[in-house]
Amino acid sequence: MGAFGWIDEQAEVRRRAGLVRVLRPRPADSPLLDLASNDYLGLARHPEVTEGAARAARTWGGGSTGSRLVTGTTELHGELERELADFCGVEAALVFSSGYAANLAAVTALAPHGSLIVSDAGNHASLIDGCRLARGTTQVVAHAEPDAVRKALGTHDGPAVAVSDAVFSVDGDAAPLAELAAVCREYGAGLVVDDAHGLGVLGDGGRGTPYAAGLAGADDVVVTATLSKSLGSQGGAVLGSARVIGHLVNAARTFIFDTGLAPAAAGAALSALRLLRRQPERAARARAVAGELYDRLTAAGLTAVRPDAAVVSVRAPSPEGAVRWAAECRAAGVAVGCFRPPSVPDGISRLRLTARADLSGEQLERAVRVIGETRP
Amino acid sequence: MGAFGWIDEQAEVRRRAGLVRVLRPRPADSPLLDLASNDYLGLARHPEVTEGAARAARTWGGGSTGSRLVTGTTELHGELERELADFCGVEAALVFSSGYAANLAAVTALAPHGSLIVSDAGNHASLIDGCRLARGTTQVVAHAEPDAVRKALGTHDGPAVAVSDAVFSVDGDAAPLAELAAVCREYGAGLVVDDAHGLGVLGDGGRGTPYAAGLAGADDVVVTATLSKSLGSQGGAVLGSARVIGHLVNAARTFIFDTGLAPAAAGAALSALRLLRRQPERAARARAVAGELYDRLTAAGLTAVRPDAAVVSVRAPSPEGAVRWAAECRAAGVAVGCFRPPSVPDGISRLRLTARADLSGEQLERAVRVIGETRP
Ligand SMILES: Cc1ncc(COP(=O)(O)O)c(C=O)c1O
Ligand SMILES: Cc1ncc(COP(=O)(O)O)c(C=O)c1O
Repeated sequence: MGAFGWIDEQAEVRRRAGLVRVLRPRPADSPLLDLASNDYLGLARHPEVTEGAARAARTWGGGSTGSRLVTGTTELHGELERELADFCGVEAALVFSSGYAANLAAVTALAPHGSLIVSDAGNHASLIDGCRLARGTTQVVAHAEPDAVRKALGTHDGPAVAVSDAVFSVDGDAAPLAELAAVCREYGAGLVVDDAHGLGVLGDGGRGTPYAAGLAGADDVVVTATLSKSLGSQGGAVLGSARVIGHLVNAARTFIFDTGLAPAAAGAALSALRLLRRQPERAARARAVAGELYDRLTAAGLTAVRPDAAVVSVRAPSPEGAVRWAAECRAAGVAVGCFRPPSVPDGISRLRLTARADLSGEQLERAVRVIGETRP
Repeated sequence: MGAFGWIDEQAEVRRRAGLVRVLRPRPADSPLLDLASNDYLGLARHPEVTEGAARAARTWGGGSTGSRLVTGTTELHGELERELADFCGVEAALVFSSGYAANLAAVTALAPHGSLIVSDAGNHASLIDGCRLARGTTQVVAHAEPDAVRKALGTHDGPAVAVSDAVFSVDGDAAPLAELAAVCREYGAGLVVDDAHGLGVLGDGGRGTPYAAGLAGADDVVVTATLSKSLGSQGGAVLGSARVIGHLVNAARTFIFDTGLAPAAAGAALSALRLLRRQPERAARARAVAGELYDRLTAAGLTAVRPDAAVVSVRAPSPEGAVRWAAECRAAGVAVGCFRPPSVPDGISRLRLTARADLSGEQLERAVRVIGETRP
């Protein structure tokens, strides 16, 4: 049977449950209408963004060539960090090779031995892995309930942080950030907020969910973000006080022991950020498209979660139903996301739709028609 | 003092010990002679590689726009995976956003609940974090000692894997891979090998350390690699049997919940790989440069570790001595790496030099002269 024979049993269980995942490479010019990507502002293929990537690769090379602490920090990384910090209204920013790595860094470095981490039950996998890796003790609390966070913090003496997605990746609902921050302050605890799905969509001109909640620049709030969604690139960032950022440079393993972000990714994200500053209406447009998508879906009799940002989640009756539904949408020319166990925290399967700022009314109408007609 | 006041105390300890790390953004045209990066083959700034990045960004966009399971797999990712697998002589490959993420994926997905992980004491931080995140139990064993691995495996019933760097990142010494594989086979255990520093340098034309050890394509061996060193880009890969790769697609959190590698990074790596296939002598040249560097250093009376690949490690008398030494090299125009606590497993400080394939004899001579003249 060999060393990895046990894999076959797991594969068989998955096959029987209809839960086998396969990769479907897409062509450069897909005929599908995209409601599945996280390209909320439609910037990933914008010529300014792709030229930003190309120019950076030519100027700085294909890779950053080393850890950020050795040769992997270019002036381009510095520029991106300054402009991100300025845009989000914080003192300093630190760029990582992914949003996943940024979350691992923030949680592990800010939850030392003896500390408490209070983690929302709906948090993203990368925050959960951060909790698992951290030296502190984790308490998972009910989704989006500041009172549960208060109760957990009340049980602990010593450093503590509450950790939450700002906009939850599965249902697209926003966390009660202002309340969470107030609760954390009662107990002198820090708040770590993952704004992966808020940056570029929420807050004035897309400055993010913490900015919208009046928390930008607060020295007890640390924000993580990704460059891979609204900014159409790859990479992650941690945004916070100079104290926290300096600490991460010295203590975060996914910063110290990882090659710096590729210049092309830094260049693409910087170009996208500058474009967004010139065209702040893109953020509002993404929100409006999400609202319109939700209205049309519910008018068609589907059960959706009212979107707080650009993600619209639609209930499916079962995992197999969700898979079939998504496949039929695809066959009818519309790409939608399909979330199902084991990658949803509550076991509920859904279609996950994203409202890109550059979707037209006609495209929205077509998408909703196809989704409605193919419902299981 | 605020939520993160405890950071100041740690910062003060670091300051007093002279261990504060700062970022030094480098310009695009640095006057420094680079012996610090991991650009072993000198490909990061090769025009074919940077054009590969630029072309991919233009064709595919600044980012991959989603998880590899949703919209983040392009035909370019598929092409890169096929060519990597073919080059390394394995059945299949899976590309990740970083080598760090690839290691987290391989270790966590291949060490389920109830399994044993036997981990070399000198392993890279990303493998260690993989062990910490995995459901299996970890036993850390003495560095590069197959007998220690045998003893650990002998204590366990059920699935087991041994995990090792192929070329250790700090000292550049190679693991005894053939012996490790033999020991693993005695016990029906799998072997996970991180070839971050071997791919492109060791094995016929740079096919890697497992290839050189006759292990390529073995179905009980899984190789991880990075696209960020010899291939001059960013990203990581897992190479193995179709069974293992299919399992990772379904089970590895850093694959499922992470945005796919940016097209520019995939394009740069693919161009570098094709260049290496056309110019296999680059691998041998990197090894020869390392040997020459070692010979010159020891002739100059310095204590260095005989290199098995392209990394040459030189002993420093103390952490402060290492920092000062590296700073003086830099002041004299030579960039060298400086490894010191807490980022070395054994507490020994060293200069870490890398032998790029494109270093000239004159450059090597100059580097060794500067390193010798500035020794503490
Ligand atoms: C909430 C959230 N946080 C973090 C991440 C990870 O970011 P990245 O894909 O850039 O690694 C994602 C998605 O991928 C996410 O949805
Ligand atoms: C041995 C080893 N494994 C893995 C990694 C991580 O690879 P990456 O930097 O591409 O994330 C590194 C270095 O960064 C390394 O030295």
